[in-house]
Amino acid sequence: MKILLVYAHPEPQSLNGSIKKFLINHLENKGHHVQVSDLYSMNWKPTLDIDDYPDRPANTRFNPSLDSQYAFEHNTQREDIALEQDKLRWADTVIFQFPLWWFSMPAILKGWFDRVYAYGFAYGVGEHSDHHWGDRYGEGIMAGKRAMLLVTTGGWPSHYSPRGINGPIEDILFPIEHGILYYPGFDVLPPFVIYHTSKIDEEKFLTICDQLGERLDTLWQTPPIAFRSQNTGMYTIPDLTLRADIAPEQAGFNTHIVK
Amino acid sequence: MKILLVYAHPEPQSLNGSIKKFLINHLENKGHHVQVSDLYSMNWKPTLDIDDYPDRPANTRFNPSLDSQYAFEHNTQREDIALEQDKLRWADTVIFQFPLWWFSMPAILKGWFDRVYAYGFAYGVGEHSDHHWGDRYGEGIMAGKRAMLLVTTGGWPSHYSPRGINGPIEDILFPIEHGILYYPGFDVLPPFVIYHTSKIDEEKFLTICDQLGERLDTLWQTPPIAFRSQNTGMYTIPDLTLRADIAPEQAGFNTHIVK
Repeated sequence: MKILLVYAHPEPQSLNGSIKKFLINHLENKGHHVQVSDLYSMNWKPTLDIDDYPDRPANTRFNPSLDSQYAFEHNTQREDIALEQDKLRWADTVIFQFPLWWFSMPAILKGWFDRVYAYGFAYGVGEHSDHHWGDRYGEGIMAGKRAMLLVTTGGWPSHYSPRGINGPIEDILFPIEHGILYYPGFDVLPPFVIYHTSKIDEEKFLTICDQLGERLDTLWQTPPIAFRSQNTGMYTIPDLTLRADIAPEQAGFNTHIVK
Repeated sequence: MKILLVYAHPEPQSLNGSIKKFLINHLENKGHHVQVSDLYSMNWKPTLDIDDYPDRPANTRFNPSLDSQYAFEHNTQREDIALEQDKLRWADTVIFQFPLWWFSMPAILKGWFDRVYAYGFAYGVGEHSDHHWGDRYGEGIMAGKRAMLLVTTGGWPSHYSPRGINGPIEDILFPIEHGILYYPGFDVLPPFVIYHTSKIDEEKFLTICDQLGERLDTLWQTPPIAFRSQNTGMYTIPDLTLRADIAPEQAGFNTHIVK
Protein backbone atom coordinates (compact mmCIF):
# COMPACT_ATOMS: atom_id res chain seq x y z
CA MET A 1 0.00 0.00 0.00
CA LYS A 2 0.94 3.63 -0.50
CA ILE A 3 0.58 5.54 2.71
CA LEU A 4 0.92 9.26 3.28
CA LEU A 5 1.58 10.50 6.81
CA VAL A 6 0.73 14.14 7.38
CA TYR A 7 2.42 15.00 10.64
CA ALA A 8 2.25 18.13 12.77
CA HIS A 9 4.39 18.25 15.90
CA PRO A 10 7.29 20.65 16.51
CA GLU A 11 9.61 18.36 18.54
CA PRO A 12 11.13 15.15 17.10
CA GLN A 13 12.07 13.97 20.62
CA SER A 14 8.46 13.97 21.78
CA LEU A 15 5.92 11.21 22.23
CA ASN A 16 4.56 12.18 18.83
CA GLY A 17 8.03 11.98 17.35
CA SER A 18 8.54 8.49 18.77
CA ILE A 19 5.14 7.34 17.55
CA LYS A 20 5.91 8.70 14.11
CA LYS A 21 9.20 6.79 13.95
CA PHE A 22 7.49 3.60 15.05
CA LEU A 23 4.74 4.06 12.47
CA ILE A 24 7.10 4.63 9.54
CA ASN A 25 9.34 1.69 10.50
CA HIS A 26 6.40 -0.61 11.05
CA LEU A 27 4.80 0.20 7.71
CA GLU A 28 8.07 -0.02 5.75
CA ASN A 29 8.96 -3.31 7.40
CA LYS A 30 5.67 -4.67 6.13
CA GLY A 31 6.57 -3.62 2.59
CA HIS A 32 4.40 -0.53 2.30
CA HIS A 33 5.51 2.66 0.61
CA VAL A 34 5.43 5.65 2.94
CA GLN A 35 5.62 9.34 2.18
CA VAL A 36 5.74 11.84 5.03
CA SER A 37 4.65 15.46 5.06
CA ASP A 38 6.33 16.60 8.26
CA LEU A 39 4.81 20.06 8.34
CA TYR A 40 7.12 21.58 10.94
CA SER A 41 10.29 20.33 9.28
CA MET A 42 8.93 21.47 5.88
CA ASN A 43 8.32 24.89 7.42
CA TRP A 44 4.82 24.67 5.94
CA LYS A 45 3.14 28.02 5.26
CA PRO A 46 -0.13 27.84 7.18
CA THR A 47 -1.85 31.04 6.08
CA LEU A 48 -4.01 30.98 2.97
CA ASP A 49 -3.51 34.45 1.55
CA ILE A 50 -3.16 36.37 -1.67
CA ASP A 51 0.51 35.37 -1.96
CA ASP A 52 -0.67 31.85 -2.72
CA TYR A 53 -1.96 33.01 -6.10
CA PRO A 54 0.72 35.10 -7.82
CA ASP A 55 -0.93 34.71 -11.24
CA ARG A 56 -4.42 35.69 -10.19
CA PRO A 57 -6.35 38.15 -12.38
CA ALA A 58 -5.30 41.71 -11.56
CA ASN A 59 -7.64 44.33 -10.18
CA THR A 60 -10.08 41.85 -8.66
CA ARG A 61 -11.03 41.34 -5.06
CA PHE A 62 -9.23 38.44 -3.47
CA ASN A 63 -11.66 35.57 -3.02
CA PRO A 64 -10.11 32.49 -1.41
CA SER A 65 -12.50 30.10 -3.17
CA LEU A 66 -12.47 31.62 -6.62
CA ASP A 67 -8.76 32.37 -6.60
CA SER A 68 -7.92 28.84 -5.54
CA GLN A 69 -10.21 27.57 -8.31
CA TYR A 70 -8.53 29.79 -10.91
CA ALA A 71 -5.06 28.68 -9.87
CA PHE A 72 -6.07 25.02 -9.74
CA GLU A 73 -7.64 25.11 -13.19
CA HIS A 74 -4.83 27.15 -14.77
CA ASN A 75 -2.00 25.17 -13.19
CA THR A 76 -0.69 28.26 -11.47
CA GLN A 77 -0.88 26.99 -7.93
CA ARG A 78 2.15 27.44 -5.71
CA GLU A 79 4.38 24.42 -5.91
CA ASP A 80 4.03 23.58 -2.22
CA ILE A 81 0.27 23.24 -2.65
CA ALA A 82 0.50 21.24 -5.88
CA LEU A 83 3.02 18.83 -4.35
CA GLU A 84 0.71 18.01 -1.45
CA GLN A 85 -2.18 17.45 -3.86
CA ASP A 86 0.06 15.04 -5.80
CA LYS A 87 0.84 13.15 -2.60
CA LEU A 88 -2.88 12.84 -1.90
CA ARG A 89 -3.49 11.50 -5.42
CA TRP A 90 -0.65 9.01 -4.96
CA ALA A 91 -1.75 7.63 -1.59
CA ASP A 92 -4.13 4.76 -0.89
CA THR A 93 -4.36 5.75 2.75
CA VAL A 94 -3.60 8.99 4.54
CA ILE A 95 -2.85 9.20 8.25
CA PHE A 96 -3.04 12.58 9.98
CA GLN A 97 -1.00 12.65 13.18
CA PHE A 98 -1.19 15.58 15.56
CA PRO A 99 -1.57 16.63 19.17
CA LEU A 100 -5.03 17.90 20.04
CA TRP A 101 -4.47 21.61 20.78
CA TRP A 102 -7.56 23.40 21.99
CA PHE A 103 -9.80 20.57 20.85
CA SER A 104 -8.64 20.79 17.26
CA MET A 105 -5.52 20.46 15.16
CA PRO A 106 -2.46 22.75 15.43
CA ALA A 107 -2.67 25.80 13.15
CA ILE A 108 0.03 24.47 10.84
CA LEU A 109 -2.14 21.47 9.96
CA LYS A 110 -5.34 23.51 9.66
CA GLY A 111 -3.45 25.66 7.19
CA TRP A 112 -2.49 22.56 5.25
CA PHE A 113 -6.16 21.81 4.69
CA ASP A 114 -7.04 25.47 4.08
CA ARG A 115 -4.45 25.70 1.27
CA VAL A 116 -4.22 22.18 -0.21
CA TYR A 117 -7.99 21.70 -0.38
CA ALA A 118 -8.45 24.00 -3.39
CA TYR A 119 -11.80 24.73 -4.99
CA GLY A 120 -12.09 22.32 -7.90
CA PHE A 121 -9.89 19.80 -6.11
CA ALA A 122 -11.52 19.05 -2.76
CA TYR A 123 -14.72 21.06 -3.06
CA GLY A 124 -16.81 22.81 -5.67
CA VAL A 125 -16.72 19.64 -7.74
CA GLY A 126 -19.51 17.92 -9.68
CA GLU A 127 -23.06 18.62 -10.74
CA HIS A 128 -25.44 20.68 -8.63
CA SER A 129 -29.02 19.72 -9.47
CA ASP A 130 -32.21 18.63 -7.77
CA HIS A 131 -30.81 15.14 -7.17
CA HIS A 132 -27.06 15.74 -6.76
CA TRP A 133 -25.41 18.48 -4.74
CA GLY A 134 -21.77 18.36 -5.72
CA ASP A 135 -19.38 15.42 -5.41
CA ARG A 136 -19.04 15.50 -1.65
CA TYR A 137 -19.81 13.58 1.50
CA GLY A 138 -18.99 10.18 0.08
CA GLU A 139 -17.96 11.23 -3.43
CA GLY A 140 -15.05 13.33 -4.63
CA ILE A 141 -11.38 13.11 -5.48
CA MET A 142 -10.55 10.97 -2.44
CA ALA A 143 -13.19 8.32 -3.11
CA GLY A 144 -11.69 4.86 -2.70
CA LYS A 145 -8.96 6.12 -0.39
CA ARG A 146 -8.87 5.75 3.36
CA ALA A 147 -7.96 8.23 6.08
CA MET A 148 -7.34 7.95 9.80
CA LEU A 149 -6.62 10.41 12.58
CA LEU A 150 -3.83 9.61 15.05
CA VAL A 151 -4.27 12.02 17.91
CA THR A 152 -2.58 12.64 21.26
CA THR A 153 -4.09 14.54 24.16
CA GLY A 154 -3.15 15.36 27.73
CA GLY A 155 -6.72 14.71 28.88
CA TRP A 156 -7.94 11.44 30.32
CA PRO A 157 -10.30 9.03 28.55
CA SER A 158 -13.05 9.90 31.05
CA HIS A 159 -12.75 13.60 30.21
CA TYR A 160 -13.65 12.69 26.62
CA SER A 161 -16.32 10.10 27.50
CA PRO A 162 -20.02 10.51 26.60
CA ARG A 163 -20.60 12.64 29.74
CA GLY A 164 -17.01 13.87 30.15
CA ILE A 165 -16.47 17.61 30.49
CA ASN A 166 -14.56 18.07 27.21
CA GLY A 167 -17.30 16.41 25.20
CA PRO A 168 -17.09 12.97 23.59
CA ILE A 169 -13.98 12.50 21.48
CA GLU A 170 -16.10 11.27 18.54
CA ASP A 171 -18.02 14.54 18.54
CA ILE A 172 -14.90 16.70 18.90
CA LEU A 173 -13.39 14.92 15.89
CA PHE A 174 -16.60 14.86 13.82
CA PRO A 175 -16.02 18.20 12.06
CA ILE A 176 -12.60 16.89 10.97
CA GLU A 177 -13.55 13.31 10.13
CA HIS A 178 -16.87 14.11 8.46
CA GLY A 179 -16.42 17.72 7.37
CA ILE A 180 -12.80 17.55 6.16
CA LEU A 181 -12.10 13.88 5.36
CA TYR A 182 -15.42 12.35 4.34
CA TYR A 183 -16.34 15.54 2.47
CA PRO A 184 -13.98 14.94 -0.51
CA GLY A 185 -14.66 11.22 -0.40
CA PHE A 186 -12.30 9.51 2.03
CA ASP A 187 -13.48 6.43 3.85
CA VAL A 188 -12.63 7.43 7.42
CA LEU A 189 -11.38 4.80 9.83
CA PRO A 190 -12.02 5.10 13.56
CA PRO A 191 -9.37 7.36 15.10
CA PHE A 192 -6.44 6.11 17.15
CA VAL A 193 -6.36 8.33 20.24
CA ILE A 194 -3.60 8.38 22.84
CA TYR A 195 -4.78 9.95 26.10
CA HIS A 196 -3.06 11.29 29.22
CA THR A 197 0.21 11.83 27.44
CA SER A 198 2.06 13.08 30.53
CA LYS A 199 1.83 9.61 32.07
CA ILE A 200 3.30 7.46 29.34
CA ASP A 201 6.32 5.43 30.48
CA GLU A 202 8.33 2.91 28.46
CA GLU A 203 5.93 0.05 29.21
CA LYS A 204 2.85 2.04 28.27
CA PHE A 205 4.60 3.24 25.12
CA LEU A 206 5.25 -0.35 24.03
CA THR A 207 1.59 -1.23 24.62
CA ILE A 208 0.54 1.73 22.50
CA CYS A 209 2.90 0.64 19.72
CA ASP A 210 1.41 -2.87 19.82
CA GLN A 211 -2.10 -1.48 19.53
CA LEU A 212 -1.14 0.96 16.81
CA GLY A 213 0.71 -1.79 14.93
CA GLU A 214 -2.48 -3.83 14.87
CA ARG A 215 -4.39 -0.89 13.45
CA LEU A 216 -1.71 -0.35 10.81
CA ASP A 217 -1.82 -4.01 9.86
CA THR A 218 -5.58 -3.85 9.32
CA LEU A 219 -5.89 -0.45 7.61
CA TRP A 220 -7.54 -2.07 4.64
CA GLN A 221 -9.80 -4.44 6.61
CA THR A 222 -11.08 -2.10 9.34
CA PRO A 223 -14.64 -0.97 8.61
CA PRO A 224 -14.79 2.80 8.12
CA ILE A 225 -17.12 5.01 10.12
CA ALA A 226 -20.52 4.50 8.42
CA PHE A 227 -21.17 8.13 7.45
CA ARG A 228 -24.26 8.55 5.29
CA SER A 229 -23.58 9.50 1.66
CA GLN A 230 -25.19 12.71 0.47
CA ASN A 231 -26.37 11.89 -3.03
CA THR A 232 -27.93 8.46 -2.64
CA GLY A 233 -31.41 9.51 -1.67
CA MET A 234 -31.10 9.79 2.10
CA TYR A 235 -30.95 13.59 2.11
CA THR A 236 -33.43 16.02 0.61
CA ILE A 237 -31.88 18.38 -1.94
CA PRO A 238 -31.06 21.28 -1.80
CA ASP A 239 -31.81 21.76 1.89
CA LEU A 240 -29.64 18.72 2.68
CA THR A 241 -31.43 17.50 5.75
CA LEU A 242 -31.82 13.81 6.46
CA ARG A 243 -35.16 12.55 5.14
CA ALA A 244 -37.84 12.70 7.81
CA ASP A 245 -38.47 8.94 7.68
CA ILE A 246 -34.84 8.00 8.36
CA ALA A 247 -33.87 7.80 12.04
CA PRO A 248 -36.70 10.21 12.81
CA GLU A 249 -35.82 10.43 16.50
CA GLN A 250 -32.25 11.55 15.89
CA ALA A 251 -30.56 14.95 15.61
CA GLY A 252 -26.96 16.10 15.76
CA PHE A 253 -23.73 14.58 14.52
CA ASN A 254 -24.83 10.99 15.12
CA THR A 255 -27.69 11.46 12.69
CA HIS A 256 -25.15 11.19 9.91
CA ILE A 257 -23.77 7.82 10.93
CA VAL A 258 -25.62 4.58 10.14
CA LYS A 259 -25.83 2.59 13.37
CA MET B 1 -17.28 49.17 27.25
CA LYS B 2 -13.90 48.00 26.04
CA ILE B 3 -14.26 45.67 23.12
CA LEU B 4 -11.58 43.68 21.35
CA LEU B 5 -12.28 42.42 17.84
CA VAL B 6 -10.07 39.55 16.74
CA TYR B 7 -10.56 39.39 13.01
CA ALA B 8 -9.35 36.84 10.44
CA HIS B 9 -10.16 37.47 6.80
CA PRO B 10 -7.64 38.18 4.02
CA GLU B 11 -9.67 40.64 1.89
CA PRO B 12 -10.83 44.05 3.20
CA GLN B 13 -13.28 44.36 0.27
CA SER B 14 -15.16 41.23 1.27
CA LEU B 15 -18.43 40.67 3.12
CA ASN B 16 -16.35 40.11 6.24
CA GLY B 17 -14.49 43.35 5.62
CA SER B 18 -17.77 45.26 5.30
CA ILE B 19 -19.19 43.66 8.43
CA LYS B 20 -16.02 44.54 10.31
CA LYS B 21 -16.28 48.19 9.28
CA PHE B 22 -19.91 48.33 10.29
CA LEU B 23 -19.13 46.74 13.64
CA ILE B 24 -16.31 49.12 14.53
CA ASN B 25 -18.30 52.21 13.47
CA HIS B 26 -21.38 51.06 15.31
CA LEU B 27 -19.56 50.40 18.55
CA GLU B 28 -17.52 53.62 18.43
CA ASN B 29 -20.64 55.65 17.64
CA LYS B 30 -22.15 54.27 20.84
CA GLY B 31 -19.14 55.44 22.80
CA HIS B 32 -17.37 52.13 23.25
CA HIS B 33 -13.62 51.71 23.03
CA VAL B 34 -12.60 49.27 20.33
CA GLN B 35 -9.29 47.60 19.67
CA VAL B 36 -8.85 45.41 16.62
CA SER B 37 -6.46 42.55 16.07
CA ASP B 38 -6.68 42.21 12.29
CA LEU B 39 -4.60 39.09 11.99
CA TYR B 40 -4.00 39.23 8.24
CA SER B 41 -2.98 42.87 8.24
CA MET B 42 -0.77 42.23 11.30
CA ASN B 43 0.84 39.36 9.38
CA TRP B 44 0.22 37.26 12.48
CA LYS B 45 2.59 34.29 12.88
CA PRO B 46 0.29 31.27 13.17
CA THR B 47 2.72 28.49 13.96
CA LEU B 48 3.59 27.82 17.59
CA ASP B 49 7.20 26.68 17.40
CA ILE B 50 10.52 26.84 19.18
CA ASP B 51 11.20 30.32 17.74
CA ASP B 52 8.46 31.64 20.04
CA TYR B 53 10.70 31.02 23.03
CA PRO B 54 14.16 32.44 22.32
CA ASP B 55 15.12 32.41 26.02
CA ARG B 56 14.09 28.85 26.75
CA PRO B 57 16.49 26.66 28.75
CA ALA B 58 19.15 25.23 26.46
CA ASN B 59 19.60 21.52 25.83
CA THR B 60 16.06 20.58 26.70
CA ARG B 61 13.40 19.04 24.52
CA PHE B 62 10.94 21.57 23.21
CA ASN B 63 7.64 21.17 25.02
CA PRO B 64 4.95 23.60 23.86
CA SER B 65 3.22 23.62 27.26
CA LEU B 66 6.25 23.84 29.50
CA ASP B 67 8.12 26.28 27.28
CA SER B 68 5.13 28.59 27.07
CA GLN B 69 4.82 28.38 30.85
CA TYR B 70 8.49 29.21 31.34
CA ALA B 71 8.30 32.19 29.00
CA PHE B 72 5.07 33.43 30.56
CA GLU B 73 6.44 33.22 34.09
CA HIS B 74 9.83 34.73 33.22
CA ASN B 75 8.47 37.53 31.05
CA THR B 76 10.37 36.28 28.06
CA GLN B 77 7.44 35.78 25.75
CA ARG B 78 7.65 37.17 22.25
CA GLU B 79 6.21 40.65 22.12
CA ASP B 80 3.47 39.74 19.65
CA ILE B 81 2.13 37.16 22.11
CA ALA B 82 2.40 39.44 25.16
CA LEU B 83 0.60 42.27 23.34
CA GLU B 84 -2.39 40.06 22.54
CA GLN B 85 -2.54 38.89 26.14
CA ASP B 86 -2.58 42.55 27.22
CA LYS B 87 -5.48 43.23 24.86
CA LEU B 88 -7.39 40.34 26.38
CA ARG B 89 -6.74 41.68 29.89
CA TRP B 90 -7.91 45.13 28.78
CA ALA B 91 -11.17 44.03 27.14
CA ASP B 92 -14.58 43.60 28.71
CA THR B 93 -15.85 41.75 25.66
CA VAL B 94 -14.04 39.96 22.86
CA ILE B 95 -15.59 39.30 19.46
CA PHE B 96 -13.97 36.75 17.17
CA GLN B 97 -14.93 37.30 13.54
CA PHE B 98 -13.98 34.79 10.87
CA PRO B 99 -15.25 32.80 7.89
CA LEU B 100 -15.93 29.15 8.67
CA TRP B 101 -13.29 27.28 6.68
CA TRP B 102 -13.66 23.52 6.82
CA PHE B 103 -16.00 23.76 9.77
CA SER B 104 -13.50 25.62 11.91
CA MET B 105 -11.53 28.84 12.00
CA PRO B 106 -8.85 29.83 9.47
CA ALA B 107 -5.36 28.65 10.43
CA ILE B 108 -4.20 32.18 11.24
CA LEU B 109 -6.81 32.45 14.01
CA LYS B 110 -6.19 28.94 15.31
CA GLY B 111 -2.57 29.95 15.59
CA TRP B 112 -3.58 33.01 17.58
CA PHE B 113 -5.13 30.77 20.20
CA ASP B 114 -2.30 28.22 20.04
CA ARG B 115 0.26 30.94 20.80
CA VAL B 116 -1.56 33.53 22.91
CA TYR B 117 -3.16 30.96 25.21
CA ALA B 118 0.06 30.24 27.12
CA TYR B 119 0.30 27.74 29.96
CA GLY B 120 -0.10 29.75 33.16
CA PHE B 121 -2.23 32.29 31.32
CA ALA B 122 -5.17 30.45 29.77
CA TYR B 123 -4.57 26.95 31.12
CA GLY B 124 -2.57 25.14 33.75
CA VAL B 125 -3.87 27.63 36.31
CA GLY B 126 -5.14 27.01 39.84
CA GLU B 127 -5.27 24.23 42.37
CA HIS B 128 -5.66 20.60 41.32
CA SER B 129 -7.19 18.64 44.20
CA ASP B 130 -10.06 16.29 44.90
CA HIS B 131 -12.57 19.14 44.74
CA HIS B 132 -11.00 21.56 42.23
CA TRP B 133 -9.38 20.67 38.93
CA GLY B 134 -7.72 23.85 37.79
CA ASP B 135 -9.30 27.23 37.16
CA ARG B 136 -11.12 26.31 34.00
CA TYR B 137 -14.55 25.82 32.51
CA GLY B 138 -16.11 28.80 34.20
CA GLU B 139 -13.08 30.08 36.12
CA GLY B 140 -9.81 31.52 34.87
CA ILE B 141 -8.24 34.72 33.66
CA MET B 142 -11.23 35.64 31.47
CA ALA B 143 -13.83 35.29 34.23
CA GLY B 144 -16.17 38.27 34.15
CA LYS B 145 -15.48 38.95 30.48
CA ARG B 146 -17.74 38.09 27.59
CA ALA B 147 -16.98 36.56 24.21
CA MET B 148 -18.96 36.06 21.03
CA LEU B 149 -18.29 34.40 17.70
CA LEU B 150 -19.24 36.25 14.50
CA VAL B 151 -19.07 33.68 11.74
CA THR B 152 -19.79 33.62 8.01
CA THR B 153 -20.40 30.51 5.95
CA GLY B 154 -21.34 29.68 2.39
CA GLY B 155 -23.70 26.95 3.58
CA TRP B 156 -27.41 27.42 4.09
CA PRO B 157 -29.16 27.47 7.47
CA SER B 158 -30.80 24.11 6.71
CA HIS B 159 -27.38 22.53 6.08
CA TYR B 160 -26.49 23.43 9.67
CA SER B 161 -29.87 22.57 11.20
CA PRO B 162 -30.36 19.76 13.74
CA ARG B 163 -30.60 17.17 10.95
CA GLY B 164 -28.63 19.10 8.32
CA ILE B 165 -25.75 17.33 6.63
CA ASN B 166 -22.98 19.53 8.06
CA GLY B 167 -24.14 18.96 11.62
CA PRO B 168 -25.86 21.56 13.81
CA ILE B 169 -24.00 24.85 13.95
CA GLU B 170 -24.11 24.80 17.78
CA ASP B 171 -22.27 21.49 17.81
CA ILE B 172 -19.73 22.58 15.20
CA LEU B 173 -18.95 25.64 17.32
CA PHE B 174 -19.01 23.85 20.69
CA PRO B 175 -15.30 22.95 20.73
CA ILE B 176 -14.53 26.65 20.17
CA GLU B 177 -17.17 28.18 22.44
CA HIS B 178 -16.83 25.68 25.27
CA GLY B 179 -13.32 24.34 24.79
CA ILE B 180 -11.53 27.59 23.88
CA LEU B 181 -13.68 30.44 25.27
CA TYR B 182 -15.49 29.05 28.30
CA TYR B 183 -12.35 27.12 29.28
CA PRO B 184 -10.40 30.18 30.56
CA GLY B 185 -13.55 31.71 31.99
CA PHE B 186 -15.34 33.74 29.32
CA ASP B 187 -19.10 34.00 29.46
CA VAL B 188 -19.93 33.01 25.89
CA LEU B 189 -22.80 34.72 24.10
CA PRO B 190 -24.79 32.91 21.42
CA PRO B 191 -22.95 33.22 18.09
CA PHE B 192 -23.97 35.55 15.30
CA VAL B 193 -23.89 33.43 12.14
CA ILE B 194 -24.26 34.74 8.59
CA TYR B 195 -25.22 31.96 6.17
CA HIS B 196 -25.24 31.57 2.39
CA THR B 197 -22.72 34.35 1.87
CA SER B 198 -22.76 34.12 -1.93
CA LYS B 199 -26.35 35.40 -1.98
CA ILE B 200 -26.02 38.59 0.05
CA ASP B 201 -27.14 41.69 -1.83
CA GLU B 202 -27.32 45.26 -0.53
CA GLU B 203 -30.75 44.79 1.05
CA LYS B 204 -29.79 41.59 2.81
CA PHE B 205 -26.57 43.24 3.99
CA LEU B 206 -28.53 46.07 5.61
CA THR B 207 -30.80 43.56 7.36
CA ILE B 208 -27.75 41.73 8.68
CA CYS B 209 -26.30 45.02 9.95
CA ASP B 210 -29.56 45.80 11.75
CA GLN B 211 -29.57 42.41 13.41
CA LEU B 212 -25.89 42.61 14.31
CA GLY B 213 -26.37 46.14 15.65
CA GLU B 214 -29.02 44.84 18.04
CA ARG B 215 -26.67 42.16 19.25
CA LEU B 216 -23.90 44.73 19.75
CA ASP B 217 -26.27 46.99 21.69
CA THR B 218 -27.15 44.16 24.06
CA LEU B 219 -23.75 42.56 24.55
CA TRP B 220 -24.00 43.10 28.25
CA GLN B 221 -27.66 42.06 28.62
CA THR B 222 -27.76 38.95 26.43
CA PRO B 223 -27.75 35.80 28.57
CA PRO B 224 -24.64 33.72 27.90
CA ILE B 225 -24.80 30.07 26.89
CA ALA B 226 -25.48 28.26 30.17
CA PHE B 227 -22.40 26.03 30.20
CA ARG B 228 -21.99 24.07 33.43
CA SER B 229 -19.10 25.17 35.62
CA GLN B 230 -16.56 22.51 36.44
CA ASN B 231 -15.72 23.11 40.08
CA THR B 232 -19.12 23.71 41.66
CA GLY B 233 -20.05 20.13 42.43
CA MET B 234 -21.73 19.09 39.20
CA TYR B 235 -18.76 17.06 37.97
CA THR B 236 -16.96 14.24 39.72
CA ILE B 237 -13.25 14.90 40.19
CA PRO B 238 -10.79 13.87 38.77
CA ASP B 239 -12.66 11.89 36.11
CA LEU B 240 -14.65 15.04 35.27
CA THR B 241 -17.85 13.39 34.16
CA LEU B 242 -21.21 14.94 34.93
CA ARG B 243 -22.66 13.49 38.14
CA ALA B 244 -24.90 10.51 37.40
CA ASP B 245 -27.94 12.17 39.01
CA ILE B 246 -27.76 15.29 36.80
CA ALA B 247 -29.52 15.04 33.43
CA PRO B 248 -29.08 11.25 33.61
CA GLU B 249 -30.58 10.67 30.17
CA GLN B 250 -28.13 13.00 28.41
CA ALA B 251 -24.79 12.49 26.68
CA GLY B 252 -22.72 14.57 24.27
CA PHE B 253 -22.08 18.29 24.03
CA ASN B 254 -25.56 19.27 25.22
CA THR B 255 -24.90 17.54 28.51
CA HIS B 256 -22.74 20.51 29.45
CA ILE B 257 -25.41 23.14 28.93
CA VAL B 258 -28.13 23.79 31.50
CA LYS B 259 -31.46 23.72 29.67
